[in-house]
Amino acid sequence: MSNYSAGPEIERLIQLLAKLPGLGPRSARRVALHLLKKREALMGPLAEALSEAADKITACSTCGNLDVSDPCAICAAPGRDPSVICVVETVGDIWALERAGAFKGRYHVLGGVLSPLDGVRPDDLNIGRLLERAAAPEITEIVLALNATVDGQTTAHYLSDRLDGLDVTITSLARGVPVGGELDYLDDGTLAAAFKSRRPA
Amino acid sequence: MSNYSAGPEIERLIQLLAKLPGLGPRSARRVALHLLKKREALMGPLAEALSEAADKITACSTCGNLDVSDPCAICAAPGRDPSVICVVETVGDIWALERAGAFKGRYHVLGGVLSPLDGVRPDDLNIGRLLERAAAPEITEIVLALNATVDGQTTAHYLSDRLDGLDVTITSLARGVPVGGELDYLDDGTLAAAFKSRRPA
Ligand SMILES: [Zn+2]
Ligand SMILES: [Zn+2]
Repeated sequence: MSNYSAGPEIERLIQLLAKLPGLGPRSARRVALHLLKKREALMGPLAEALSEAADKITACSTCGNLDVSDPCAICAAPGRDPSVICVVETVGDIWALERAGAFKGRYHVLGGVLSPLDGVRPDDLNIGRLLERAAAPEITEIVLALNATVDGQTTAHYLSDRLDGLDVTITSLARGVPVGGELDYLDDGTLAAAFKSRRPA
Repeated sequence: MSNYSAGPEIERLIQLLAKLPGLGPRSARRVALHLLKKREALMGPLAEALSEAADKITACSTCGNLDVSDPCAICAAPGRDPSVICVVETVGDIWALERAGAFKGRYHVLGGVLSPLDGVRPDDLNIGRLLERAAAPEITEIVLALNATVDGQTTAHYLSDRLDGLDVTITSLARGVPVGGELDYLDDGTLAAAFKSRRPA
């Protein structure tokens, strides 16, 4: 191996890019090279967009969605049904459901699922705030839109137990979601159909 | 489709990320979400690294390598053999050859290869500066380390013709480079072996 390095600035950029999901050292180098070739058209704008997003975007203190405002645009929208809360694992699931146009209520982001293997316990998830929100008088339905994975379904059962006794209907997505499937990988039609035929949990 | 958007800041970030090689709209969303989750540890530092690299890094006016200094660290290094120039297509090929420790001379980055299909002609490549450099009295060998593709080999023949008449030996990499192979995809051992057994072009 040579002791040449492309310089600390490029090496650091490659190291950071290699931490992005789906990129390894080799693809990080390709991305770095592409960015260096397109400094004005892509690298500068991307630096600004990242910096602006890192500064401005915050988690909604009500639902956990990411937005430039708190409450987020969905929690603040007057046109959305205030009586239904859709519980999801991640903000990416909100994006997927919104792309599908599947739901017109509000969301709650758990920030993950219970996982004994990964050491994720109830206290690690955004559950306390969900119980508070679910107890509000206007809430009539909680949709548990969790992934159809073992951990997702374990978490849904756990939440059903915790929500038991409240005057709300608890539903989950129809079995249109393939077993083992993750919401963010489904096409819009499947998601919309699964939402429409949601059923009591 | 819903008319909800994740906000102009996030949408712009996703659009820019989707322009990176190997990323599409879906993986760009995953990367954006990952960055937003790791704002302090990854998103901020990446924004800074991009901004710093975009500001500081420039193309070496001698060889075309990318570095924070001009001449670049390789052109300026006193320990490198000043009598051999290795001609490559892109800066990524310099990185690959340096990782392999295959070469101790200096480089020349063409910035691509001749390609009638893509409309790349000799004037579009960094060839004039190569002819100047090759004519200097200290130069004894020019290694044409171009990809073993049709366009790479066409370009090598073209350069051999242009360099003909100069008092330099023109070599190319040994056939250890697989036909159709691109340098940046080879393992270090193959590259080093191909370099060692380079032969007259
Ligand atoms: Zn919200
Ligand atoms: Zn240089």
